[in-house]
Amino acid sequence: MNEKLLVGEKAAEYVKDGMVVGLGTGSTVYYTIQKLGERVAAGLSIVGIPTSIQTEELAKKVGIPLMPFEEAETIHLAIDGADEADPESNLIKGGGGALLREKMIAYLAKQFIVVADSKKMVETLGAFKLPVEIIQFGYKVTQRHIEKLGCTAILRVKDGKPYVTDNGNYILDCDFGDIKDPQPLELKMNMIPGVVENGLFVGMADRIITVNQNGDVEDQNCRG
Amino acid sequence: MNEKLLVGEKAAEYVKDGMVVGLGTGSTVYYTIQKLGERVAAGLSIVGIPTSIQTEELAKKVGIPLMPFEEAETIHLAIDGADEADPESNLIKGGGGALLREKMIAYLAKQFIVVADSKKMVETLGAFKLPVEIIQFGYKVTQRHIEKLGCTAILRVKDGKPYVTDNGNYILDCDFGDIKDPQPLELKMNMIPGVVENGLFVGMADRIITVNQNGDVEDQNCRG
Repeated sequence: MNEKLLVGEKAAEYVKDGMVVGLGTGSTVYYTIQKLGERVAAGLSIVGIPTSIQTEELAKKVGIPLMPFEEAETIHLAIDGADEADPESNLIKGGGGALLREKMIAYLAKQFIVVADSKKMVETLGAFKLPVEIIQFGYKVTQRHIEKLGCTAILRVKDGKPYVTDNGNYILDCDFGDIKDPQPLELKMNMIPGVVENGLFVGMADRIITVNQNGDVEDQNCRG
Repeated sequence: MNEKLLVGEKAAEYVKDGMVVGLGTGSTVYYTIQKLGERVAAGLSIVGIPTSIQTEELAKKVGIPLMPFEEAETIHLAIDGADEADPESNLIKGGGGALLREKMIAYLAKQFIVVADSKKMVETLGAFKLPVEIIQFGYKVTQRHIEKLGCTAILRVKDGKPYVTDNGNYILDCDFGDIKDPQPLELKMNMIPGVVENGLFVGMADRIITVNQNGDVEDQNCRG
């Protein structure tokens, strides 16, 4: 059974005619975008806003009309994956390095649907290291401030050099162990000068679509 | 009477042998740096960390040894100006565009001394437009989120183009009118994805040195 296909396609059902849709990035939302391409070919009228160049290319290929985020007045619905989701619908995102753009799009969206295969559903966040985007200037100082919150923070490296985000910043991957109370952590993190954004998405998900132990699609309303 | 000289030189008295000192930027802290240069010439041993290239050049000229912020393990004392200071010692900074580096240095400092001529001392913050540093991507969306907090936000422009900070970001100058309660505003602002930092310095000043109505230097202990 392809869980990613099941939940990815299920999410596409929430997309209605006339919507501006935030299109996430990753191997699950891949199937949402494929399905939306089919529906557009069959007459659905939507405009997509991609969270990455990868998604932009895929959406173009399947025929979804796009607009840049810059010009968005509103986003009716955003669909994206997650690296982890806990029972309170808090997420860790940012493994792919695009956490800031993903958060900006989810933040603007009136509704935010998360697609996650069963492996992403955890009792407590934190096995996946929390990505934190920080400015380059004085990054070692920022790293120490973050570590004082109770983690080991490792500078993300690519091809032997610090990984640089689309916004020209660095990423720290932070091992906090179990993150039992993500809300105050998100807040403390964002109050450190030098931190641009962090990968905790607290209270942002409106719906999480996953697969339960029986192998059935489970469509959770997080506001219910 | 040169108020800036009076308060600038007064602040220099807090600098002791062996200290790592954050050196702010502006027309008041200019006199602090001049005075520190004299004291270094007379045998004072300190290391300065400049908040700007302008200050770096001035400090070199007057003979203060410097180190980059990157390498700082600690800052014993930072001295900087402010655009406004209220009776609770909350500040607006960032008129010069370096609010993030200034905040990073003040945040690391064990003690933060503000030098401000009497014109900077206000009953309520807000006549000076609050500078907010935001990432370029989707800045119009971020601008609208900020305006929902109750302001008019204008993109800072220089030579006909958006002003770009040392960190590659834009600045919005935000007119909130009176800012009676800066703490929740600072927090809400920093929780908006796309906001890198804002010019509110809440509860950071340990000491404000200014001039009172009689023309005397007033040295306020903000923790007293």
